[in-house]
Amino acid sequence: MRATVFHGPQDVRVEEVPDAQVQTGRDAVVRVTHACVCGSDLWPYGGGLPKEAGTRIGHEFLGVVDAVGPDVTSVAVGDLVLSPFTWSCGSCEHCRRGLPSSCVRGGFFGGPAGDGGQGEAVRVPQADGTLVRLPAELAGDPLLQSVLPLTDVMPTGHHAAVSAGVEAGGTVVVVGDGAVGLCGVLAAARLGAGRVIALGHHEDRLALARRFGATDVVTVRGAEAVAQVRELTGGGADSVLECVGNQESLDTALGSARDGGKVGYVGVPAGVKGLQLGTIFRRNITLAGGIAPARAYIPELLADILAGTLDPRPVLDRAYGLDDVPTAYADMAGRSTLKAMIVL
Amino acid sequence: MRATVFHGPQDVRVEEVPDAQVQTGRDAVVRVTHACVCGSDLWPYGGGLPKEAGTRIGHEFLGVVDAVGPDVTSVAVGDLVLSPFTWSCGSCEHCRRGLPSSCVRGGFFGGPAGDGGQGEAVRVPQADGTLVRLPAELAGDPLLQSVLPLTDVMPTGHHAAVSAGVEAGGTVVVVGDGAVGLCGVLAAARLGAGRVIALGHHEDRLALARRFGATDVVTVRGAEAVAQVRELTGGGADSVLECVGNQESLDTALGSARDGGKVGYVGVPAGVKGLQLGTIFRRNITLAGGIAPARAYIPELLADILAGTLDPRPVLDRAYGLDDVPTAYADMAGRSTLKAMIVL
Repeated sequence: MRATVFHGPQDVRVEEVPDAQVQTGRDAVVRVTHACVCGSDLWPYGGGLPKEAGTRIGHEFLGVVDAVGPDVTSVAVGDLVLSPFTWSCGSCEHCRRGLPSSCVRGGFFGGPAGDGGQGEAVRVPQADGTLVRLPAELAGDPLLQSVLPLTDVMPTGHHAAVSAGVEAGGTVVVVGDGAVGLCGVLAAARLGAGRVIALGHHEDRLALARRFGATDVVTVRGAEAVAQVRELTGGGADSVLECVGNQESLDTALGSARDGGKVGYVGVPAGVKGLQLGTIFRRNITLAGGIAPARAYIPELLADILAGTLDPRPVLDRAYGLDDVPTAYADMAGRSTLKAMIVL
Repeated sequence: MRATVFHGPQDVRVEEVPDAQVQTGRDAVVRVTHACVCGSDLWPYGGGLPKEAGTRIGHEFLGVVDAVGPDVTSVAVGDLVLSPFTWSCGSCEHCRRGLPSSCVRGGFFGGPAGDGGQGEAVRVPQADGTLVRLPAELAGDPLLQSVLPLTDVMPTGHHAAVSAGVEAGGTVVVVGDGAVGLCGVLAAARLGAGRVIALGHHEDRLALARRFGATDVVTVRGAEAVAQVRELTGGGADSVLECVGNQESLDTALGSARDGGKVGYVGVPAGVKGLQLGTIFRRNITLAGGIAPARAYIPELLADILAGTLDPRPVLDRAYGLDDVPTAYADMAGRSTLKAMIVL
């Protein structure tokens, strides 16, 4: 089979790799029909985070079950399924508490230990705890592309909003106009936020933020952005979603929160050097968030997408074939593509 | 009048200072009958935090109103009153939200701009928003000493517990066996915690922690303490109260929380160099807390003290006269006194 392999910064290749196979009784193999490139794939691609050369990459995919191990009970060959970006058992204490991202039997797709999502097929460990069955009639339906962001960015934006304590009528700032930030806008609007201020630097993405429910946009950076937010909100927002993960975005997020406010951060903090603990101590700002427990959020978000009240599809602004994955990476790194969908 | 003045590390003196006087219409002057030395007073005393020589020190006091400005309506001359360690107006947006520690008209006693609490009298700005009237019959009653910790350490321990999300039946770790940590144990027990594990290094204080509701004590440090907590709790506590404020205590607190748990920190982070954001991101640990909004918590805690269901009095293990304040500092710095009460 063919899949995307990471060879080094600016060097991903679609290559022949060993076929995905059931290795344990709890595995399933999913034949991928749709995948995505994630902003976090760009960290190693850009050289900002180390990743071993020769390992698989990509963690957002959906498709059809091709094989299952003998212990798998919740999905069967032929089922249309969606996977979150981590696998999880569904039965350990963390999973039962709604934190599958900390599953004791869990792991990351596209990491050193697992298959990557940007390929023809993926071995899915802990299939019963991981995979979500989709209605069969979704195959071939355009709505399937609306469901695809549930693999990562939509639950991650939702996690930022939940972690930031977004409440009906509250004021919300979203730092970052990437796919996660835009999903954060959707999530905040879905939770009933009264005002949603989107911070970013790309006109087209901020236009999308407005479509998704942003009431205001701020395009300046750093201290200037904080000053505008504090002016717009009369002293800072109740909830701030940090959806980037570098030092400037974190500082902007903390500065944008009102005293006693909450910052929900979901951007991999790869670019963060330090946190001014004294400042957030003085202002009683809560810092919450982390890796999104996507599997726990998917059912409620899926229900809304199927009902037509939620649609993150527009974040997938360009489709590529499998052979074009290297181009997709280059386009996303160059910001000409917001988020690449891979259609197999 | 006489009051305590900070002259430098290991050098506080009780000296003649100008009489406390009403300076604005909203001021009151309180004749101090009881004061305390706070663990945070020991930061400048020990040289760990800068403080200008010649400034007043101390921020925990109660007493009798001696004078009021013409705009003060809620207290009158002769009233027995308690003050939290900060003053606040009671009417700005932060105060109305229950965050008087961020009051736009607020300030700190014992700071560069205000009187200190360890003296014969204190000018209290924003008297209506700041002072809490106590029942007159409390004067001369031993119960008044149980109320004294409401000036700071009891609401601060409570803030740690609230920030750490202590819930009925939950598992709780309290890092630190100083007065705030011990009040944190009291607060966690009051909120119904199912298990309270106190971490500290002083046998007598940990004995008090047990009296206050700790079910377990851990006396080792650092990674060893974390290992014991994780063993006792089966993977970490739901809620961790960080009541010290140095790097080791913060690291211990974060390590003691379960994935998805909450750390409430109230120790002035004077000794904290850095925070491992990547680790708490991976584990979805929430960091909350800061300067306690004491004024907002005092009414409910006072009600319980007056009802006899809460008693932080034992943290005040030794009484001194005003002239003995320098000895009180030395004793607390040397750990022979847990918390000094000054009786005038």
